[in-house]
Amino acid sequence: MNATAEPLLSVVRPTTVLRTPRLSQRLNAEVTLVSETFQHTGSFKFRAAYNVAAQVAQRRIITASSGNFGQALAYACSLLGKEAIVVMPSTAAGVKIRAVREYGATVELIDVNEKRRAQRVAELARDFPDAYIASAYDDPLVIAGNASLGQEIARLDTAFDAVIVPVGGGGLSSGLIQGLRGSGSTVSIIGAEPLLANDAARSLQCGCIVANGAEPQTLADGARTLSLGRCNWEILHKNMDAIIEVPEAAIAEGVRLLFELANLKAEPTAALAIGALLAEPRRFQQRSLCCVISGGNVDPLLYRELLT
Amino acid sequence: MNATAEPLLSVVRPTTVLRTPRLSQRLNAEVTLVSETFQHTGSFKFRAAYNVAAQVAQRRIITASSGNFGQALAYACSLLGKEAIVVMPSTAAGVKIRAVREYGATVELIDVNEKRRAQRVAELARDFPDAYIASAYDDPLVIAGNASLGQEIARLDTAFDAVIVPVGGGGLSSGLIQGLRGSGSTVSIIGAEPLLANDAARSLQCGCIVANGAEPQTLADGARTLSLGRCNWEILHKNMDAIIEVPEAAIAEGVRLLFELANLKAEPTAALAIGALLAEPRRFQQRSLCCVISGGNVDPLLYRELLT
Repeated sequence: MNATAEPLLSVVRPTTVLRTPRLSQRLNAEVTLVSETFQHTGSFKFRAAYNVAAQVAQRRIITASSGNFGQALAYACSLLGKEAIVVMPSTAAGVKIRAVREYGATVELIDVNEKRRAQRVAELARDFPDAYIASAYDDPLVIAGNASLGQEIARLDTAFDAVIVPVGGGGLSSGLIQGLRGSGSTVSIIGAEPLLANDAARSLQCGCIVANGAEPQTLADGARTLSLGRCNWEILHKNMDAIIEVPEAAIAEGVRLLFELANLKAEPTAALAIGALLAEPRRFQQRSLCCVISGGNVDPLLYRELLT
Repeated sequence: MNATAEPLLSVVRPTTVLRTPRLSQRLNAEVTLVSETFQHTGSFKFRAAYNVAAQVAQRRIITASSGNFGQALAYACSLLGKEAIVVMPSTAAGVKIRAVREYGATVELIDVNEKRRAQRVAELARDFPDAYIASAYDDPLVIAGNASLGQEIARLDTAFDAVIVPVGGGGLSSGLIQGLRGSGSTVSIIGAEPLLANDAARSLQCGCIVANGAEPQTLADGARTLSLGRCNWEILHKNMDAIIEVPEAAIAEGVRLLFELANLKAEPTAALAIGALLAEPRRFQQRSLCCVISGGNVDPLLYRELLT
């Protein structure tokens, strides 16, 4: 569980810490943003992807990702002289496919009506028996990579009442917990999950992993996972104080508030922590809060709509 | 000219330095962004405003500004326990008027059809003979405040071929020069000015201050000045290597590229340096460039249009 992230520390960009008086005033809380929008490849996923690519012996790494993990793995492999193969649906936004290619990976496009992503990954794994098959969240190396962000937060000289973090597959939140607890921090850790994709909240309630029936069509595309990963669950159910279920309107409003009051371009998934404050304002009143902004990669057309 | 900015250094936020491989690839140059979008009040103007408010003896400061200097002065005065009066046209965007008020200033709205801004400032100066009348650019204290950004750039461990900086009234560019040269840097300094508001380029050509006939209606609203200030001109004409005249389409494209390839929300004026690279790509090919992004305060409706 505690695979060290030594090679990571020299490569990762320090997170961007923003104290935002106008946003704080609007939300009636003392808000500090910890933003990964300027991390390599524009999201926290680089921390995980680089740690995986650096620590496994394999020279070839295969993953299925239509989003940030694909870009992150592509760039991490290019830095390490390794080869990345990223399986993406042919319906993915052209800008995302282009980004993964620009970062140096081979893109395998599939028609998801004909073939599931996992099926194509399994085929590739047979074709390349020497390859490592990387999960974007359910992997101790992913968790250890993301723990580096928790370590950074623990070193800030602010005593937070809580750290609020987006929850999808649980890779970021479990890594954050590992990094914070490993640094001796006992701060309260609260998840922010789309109400439309509330499997983690339900899992926490029932004490076991609960899955969504189908991929939830939330705006927060980084949280469109069927369920938490097993490695992530082990950490989350023991350490997460609560999960706030965020309605879609609050996610969109979070994106807008970050734009207007903090000059920050965030993707919908990254606005979940702000959405949680909007969803439960009384819970967080006057508290000192660290809100994790997980990334900034958002389609311009969608972003335009969100600003309306 | 060299009024020190000592009190400033403990208050100003360090600029945000972003190395952007995808933007560099697109622009065919090695681009480092030096961004003031996360400075207090969202633009570099805080450096100047705070230095003015801290260094003058007066307790009350009056200025005319429909934009970033008004917000910056309001916040600087609130930090220093001073009083700011900001004259704004009643036609200014509601979001801007609200921001100046939220930062604690008194806003004096005028109908610009009935009364010029300078006229209202002169009236206020008579009403408050104890007040300091602050210019947003033509003031040694403004230049010294902005010099702090030049000092930060001089301390970066990158050897730039050039620093490219937006030019409006000349407050930022002259401050940058003072800070860079005062720190011993001999780097080439290049201005980026809207083609529609090219008074500074024409001034440099003729060797004297040339004014625009009327307020130029460029997208880059921070550069809608009639002419350079005298204090600014003294520094600029001796130290600026060139001024690139940037067409409106290149300003808009600069905003888009910063959004898409650097995850950075920039206001049109702040995209001038990127616009300059688009306007004269061969000039900057393969060069190592420091592009100053002056601020991020932009109306959401305008920003939406720019993303189209």
